[in-house]
Amino acid sequence: MRILGIDPGYGIVGFGIIDTDRNNEVVDFGVIETPKEDTLPVRLMRIEEALRVLFERYRPDEVAVEELFYFHNQTTVIPVAEARGVIILTAQKYCERLFEYTPMQIKQALTGNGRADKKQMQFMVKAVLGLEKIPKPDDAADALAVALCHSQINPTLNVNRI
Amino acid sequence: MRILGIDPGYGIVGFGIIDTDRNNEVVDFGVIETPKEDTLPVRLMRIEEALRVLFERYRPDEVAVEELFYFHNQTTVIPVAEARGVIILTAQKYCERLFEYTPMQIKQALTGNGRADKKQMQFMVKAVLGLEKIPKPDDAADALAVALCHSQINPTLNVNRI
Repeated sequence: MRILGIDPGYGIVGFGIIDTDRNNEVVDFGVIETPKEDTLPVRLMRIEEALRVLFERYRPDEVAVEELFYFHNQTTVIPVAEARGVIILTAQKYCERLFEYTPMQIKQALTGNGRADKKQMQFMVKAVLGLEKIPKPDDAADALAVALCHSQINPTLNVNRI
Repeated sequence: MRILGIDPGYGIVGFGIIDTDRNNEVVDFGVIETPKEDTLPVRLMRIEEALRVLFERYRPDEVAVEELFYFHNQTTVIPVAEARGVIILTAQKYCERLFEYTPMQIKQALTGNGRADKKQMQFMVKAVLGLEKIPKPDDAADALAVALCHSQINPTLNVNRI
């Protein structure tokens, strides 16, 4: 099974693709970046277009997207959620099996500790995927972590399905 | 000029269309409703599809969307923002002139009071648009209020442009 993990954002969207049938072989990873000079509507269009290219090229069987939380005074939560809406819409058109995981669930799945820090997480992504170095940028490593988290869940249970 | 006003949501999206060249004649108003039984990704697809129909039928020159705020313990802000992302994306594809207004700006524009209540607002929407009764449901009246608010702004100033 091929899993696409996504770390949502409007400035940077991380993505990471793994094949579970091949012992979680990394197919690709990277980021979609949108220029600060563009308006939010144009940035949303660029995200949709870049995702279309990814879905058409890699045809994932399942998609795992990090869940958002809002905290007090967290001013970017609304535009990030707006971008996440576009990501979910686009994913649904290409792949009907969408799942979401909280940051704590992802940390728990990879390290056994729901409060693991970024370094521990990146170390585990590198180790579990057998990579020579930590995937860069951070958002791509985060997206691979979401994909890995989902790979540990029995998909027939439909746990965390969106 | 034809203005499409939108009151965003994932369960109900209000819309209201007015022609400013014809003394703010009401072209159409109503709501896009999405079934509770559907998953969020499917509801987002339904919103996009229904908006496409509206844009193709009415071809608005400018679109005005209510701005979101998040408050403490407001649990629906994330899915509403996700739907708003889909609305903005779709609007951008059909009409490059998008604007946003806060609830306070809309109330101020229609009643002169940024803290006007729902009844005052609905009364003014009916009065200014010369309607026989208050537009129903509430979300459609809210969307007409956004369109009316935008009609009062000089568009060449590009104030509140998204």
